[in-house]
Formats: sequence, structure tokens, C-alpha cells
Amino acid sequence: MSDRYFEDFAVGQVFKPSGRVRVDKDDIIAFARKFDPQPFHLDEEAARRSIFGRLVASGWHTAAMTMSLVARSEYRPAGGTIGLGFEKLRWPIPVFPGDELRVESEVLEMRPSVSRPDRGLMKMRTRTINQNGDAVQEMIANAMVPRRPHSENS
Amino acid sequence: MSDRYFEDFAVGQVFKPSGRVRVDKDDIIAFARKFDPQPFHLDEEAARRSIFGRLVASGWHTAAMTMSLVARSEYRPAGGTIGLGFEKLRWPIPVFPGDELRVESEVLEMRPSVSRPDRGLMKMRTRTINQNGDAVQEMIANAMVPRRPHSENS
Repeated sequence: MSDRYFEDFAVGQVFKPSGRVRVDKDDIIAFARKFDPQPFHLDEEAARRSIFGRLVASGWHTAAMTMSLVARSEYRPAGGTIGLGFEKLRWPIPVFPGDELRVESEVLEMRPSVSRPDRGLMKMRTRTINQNGDAVQEMIANAMVPRRPHSENS
Repeated sequence: MSDRYFEDFAVGQVFKPSGRVRVDKDDIIAFARKFDPQPFHLDEEAARRSIFGRLVASGWHTAAMTMSLVARSEYRPAGGTIGLGFEKLRWPIPVFPGDELRVESEVLEMRPSVSRPDRGLMKMRTRTINQNGDAVQEMIANAMVPRRPHSENS
């Protein structure tokens, strides 16, 4: 698929990438060891005694897995996605080992960048959905996307 | 240090954990391969031709490194931090290989949980600051924290 520019997106557009990621118990633990060493992310026994009752993925792991799905999706602007930040990021329910996650994104707003005329700004809602159809993460993100270059010959 | 409960926190309280993390180039690339495979996170040559001009860490990597600093900090509620989500998460400037990051957190709001009387809700602002004193990430997060258990004997 060719790269997309700001001009190729439209408000209301929905992306349902076909990619899925299966959440692996060892990956949950490895991520937690490195970045989020809390008992309910590290150890099944300790997790059983926690508020979750079983091992759950770090929310940051869910966010990173979401990024991996978005990066492989048809929403792939030319030059990559420059994330500017988030207005909202929620983890309504936990992610468990064996879950299978997919993402759905919708373009909420678009406007040209004032400071950078070669860029546009997009507000997107991205939901991460498990095998039961429940959203495990919802975020509203602002991203910077390149505008289609003017051709000198046209 | 003993565990902290909701009752041990106060609005306006500031935490400046002493921990720091040095951002390693190979770690930037390894994280990007797994979760955020974009040219400016993966390859120095490609990064030079990108909007950043050099290799930069994925924002999600910065978020995960921030979590690793928070997890090691004196802000460590009993039973762990249950992140409910974020109202805002911004990456004002990029994180480069060799950067040294630290975090600063401030309690903005506190209220008891209505649905769970054994828990309290805290709104925190956490800034991730590089060796030049510039914020590379700023987030406002809502977390659930256990309340101090009532003693039967007192």
C-alpha cells in the first residue's frame, strides 16, 4: 500500500486493521520486569491475592501492543505517525494472558498545521478490543501527518 | 519504606524520586522493533532523513521508562498502583539516545471511591525530565489507591 498523506484522510473515516495480537503470559511478565514491576504483573500467585485476582498486563504494555497494531495498520501516514500526545487514555478492563487484541481507529477532527504548512493535525480515537468485543483501552490521540507535496510539474 | 495508603497522601504533595534511567540506543531500537517499528525509532540513517533528524525513542517507550521510574519511587501505594487512565499525556520534545530521565510527580486531587469504600482516587501530574531540565513527557493520571484498613482493635 502506498503512503497516505493528510489529504487522504477524512473526518469520520474508520480503520479496522485486520491485524491481531495474542497476549502471551511470558511477554506480560518480561514487560513488567523491565518497566512495571508490580506484583499483579509479575507473578501469578501474587496476582491471585491482588485486586485483579489473576495476572494482568501492565496498561503500558497494552498501550505498546496497541501501537504495534496501529503501526501495521492501513492508517500509515507517509513518513510515519508523529504522536503529539493524548487527550484521554483509559483502560476500562484488564488484559489477561491469552487475550487476543485488535484495534479500531476513527478520525475525529482534522486541521492544517499553522506553524508547519507541510503538516496537518489529526485527532483520532483508537479503541483496543479483546476477543469478547470489549474495549480494554480507549484513547483519543493527536497526531501530525505530512501533507501531500506539491508537484512542481502540475 | 513501608507501603503507603490513600491517607498518607495529600493534595500538593510533590515526589521527586532519586531514580534516573539512561536511555540506551539499543533499547530504543529493541522496543521499536517489538512495538513501534517506524523508521525514526529503528535506524539512524533513516532517522536522519526524518522530521526528527536523528534516532528518537518511541513515545510509548518513554511512557514505559517513566513507569519504571514511578514504580521505583517513594510514591508506592500499598498493593501497587492501579492506573485507571489519563486525562492528558504529552511528549513535548523527543527523547534521544544518551538522555538521562527522571520523574517528578504531584498530587492534584484526591477523593474517596464511591463504588469501593476500601479505595481512594488520586489525580497526579507526572513529568519526565531530561538531563537539561526539559520535560519530555507530561501526564495527568488517575489512579486508585487502597485506603488504610480499619484496625479491629483500635
